[in-house]
Amino acid sequence: MIETKNSTRRVTMISSISEMKEVSQSIQKQNLTIGLVPTMGCLHEGHLSLIKRSLESCDKTVVSIFVNPTQFGPNEDLDSYPRPLESDIEKLDEMGVDILFHPSKEEMYPTGYKTFVEIKNITEQLCGKSRPDLFQGVATIVLKLFNIIQPQNAFFGEKDWQQLAVIENLVKDLNLDVAIIRVPLVRESDGLAMSSRNRYLSVQERQSALSLSRTLQKAQDQIRQGITSAKTINNLIQKRLLETEGAKIDYISICDPVNFKEKEQIRGRTLIALAVKIGPSRLIDNCIIEEI
Amino acid sequence: MIETKNSTRRVTMISSISEMKEVSQSIQKQNLTIGLVPTMGCLHEGHLSLIKRSLESCDKTVVSIFVNPTQFGPNEDLDSYPRPLESDIEKLDEMGVDILFHPSKEEMYPTGYKTFVEIKNITEQLCGKSRPDLFQGVATIVLKLFNIIQPQNAFFGEKDWQQLAVIENLVKDLNLDVAIIRVPLVRESDGLAMSSRNRYLSVQERQSALSLSRTLQKAQDQIRQGITSAKTINNLIQKRLLETEGAKIDYISICDPVNFKEKEQIRGRTLIALAVKIGPSRLIDNCIIEEI
Repeated sequence: MIETKNSTRRVTMISSISEMKEVSQSIQKQNLTIGLVPTMGCLHEGHLSLIKRSLESCDKTVVSIFVNPTQFGPNEDLDSYPRPLESDIEKLDEMGVDILFHPSKEEMYPTGYKTFVEIKNITEQLCGKSRPDLFQGVATIVLKLFNIIQPQNAFFGEKDWQQLAVIENLVKDLNLDVAIIRVPLVRESDGLAMSSRNRYLSVQERQSALSLSRTLQKAQDQIRQGITSAKTINNLIQKRLLETEGAKIDYISICDPVNFKEKEQIRGRTLIALAVKIGPSRLIDNCIIEEI
Repeated sequence: MIETKNSTRRVTMISSISEMKEVSQSIQKQNLTIGLVPTMGCLHEGHLSLIKRSLESCDKTVVSIFVNPTQFGPNEDLDSYPRPLESDIEKLDEMGVDILFHPSKEEMYPTGYKTFVEIKNITEQLCGKSRPDLFQGVATIVLKLFNIIQPQNAFFGEKDWQQLAVIENLVKDLNLDVAIIRVPLVRESDGLAMSSRNRYLSVQERQSALSLSRTLQKAQDQIRQGITSAKTINNLIQKRLLETEGAKIDYISICDPVNFKEKEQIRGRTLIALAVKIGPSRLIDNCIIEEI
């Protein structure tokens, strides 16, 4: 069922749920561990860092590519989301990924689909505020992938910090047997956080997009110099983003990194998270201020 | 870990999730099958028929007893729900049940619990209309039990017809590997549907409660005699229930047994479902009219 790695080292592509389940069960029967990296494709260095972690620590690595419709709102970029499948497969081949799970929308959400998972209290803030469908869609598809693939480990990037919290709560609350491995955000050499949505940016917009990471850097500098008022830091961030050409702020949050409650004072471990629309792309970035 | 059955044939009681998981895993490793009968305790012949089916068809039978707080509304009978644990254990012992999973509320819903499962489109009607929290609570606890116990088969009674539809959709939509076994409703010799809530009834109320099954019987007779108008049958049921001392109708539904859409004509397979409050108890009953 599983292709042995030969000189061409071709990743096994699976699109049916029943076949994916069979393959997973046969891997488990051999007492081998499965690492899962769920993605929406358009793989960049951020994804590759997740895949690398899985290849290093698990016997078999499954990457899923599925642009999940239930996590997009009605006016979001579901239709235009990039789907460069061939170049994604080349990357998976090169890395030595064992299996690509690439189901259709109809396979994952057949006619009459009715079931959704909701994580309360941590999905109303930050990205959940402007994208109310996002985390219900994410939790649902991730739970389905876990049930189909039955991984021992699943790898998620800290760029989507709130998503990681959602998935950690999902696993704990529903008594799932999968370890969630957090992997740090990966940046371009100039600081821009890796994102599939960076593809949408023009040269000028990409320049503006640098404002997110640079502003976060500036905020961290100020905090290191002793400023603890969240309002002061928020104002500083806001001012810099407002000065950025073509940038529209969605949110600036200085909050607890576990429950996402806004802070007045930057004391204890703190998350600073931004979402900014630049041209056609809604970009996010974040940093953690460790306990000071 | 699993007690061998000896002359005292004592059911193994487990209250911790981690221990239950270990025991389940050790059963699976022996290539034995697990049957699960989820209950809220106060076991009656209806439960025992589910347990009997599991004992007949699975290597190991796990019965769970957990009065699930998330499926009770604020003005419902959570606190007064009967919990005769000792006599339940005696029954499980007598039948030869292998394991009783009996966790605390804190074990299942620790502080900070946030995750709930929702089944859309089939939970707004019938019982879901007057008990809006019911099916979200049911779906959530059943999913947790499946994840903890990992049964091959799970047994549910057709008395809770809508609950069965919810669970069948949960399993299908979330790609779970458990077979849902439907077991027919069990009645007292005089026709009263078995229910833990029958305990609340006084002698007089119990007499009134017979009206549910008798009215359903009468409706079936009329349909057999050629009446196909749902309105006519509904009126007949309503009239008889209104004449019943102390009965307050919650709903009368003549509907499709899969999607719960109300029917005008009784054609094709049809569910007739009732919920009636009698004294302190909200009682339900139903029957299926096979395709005519």
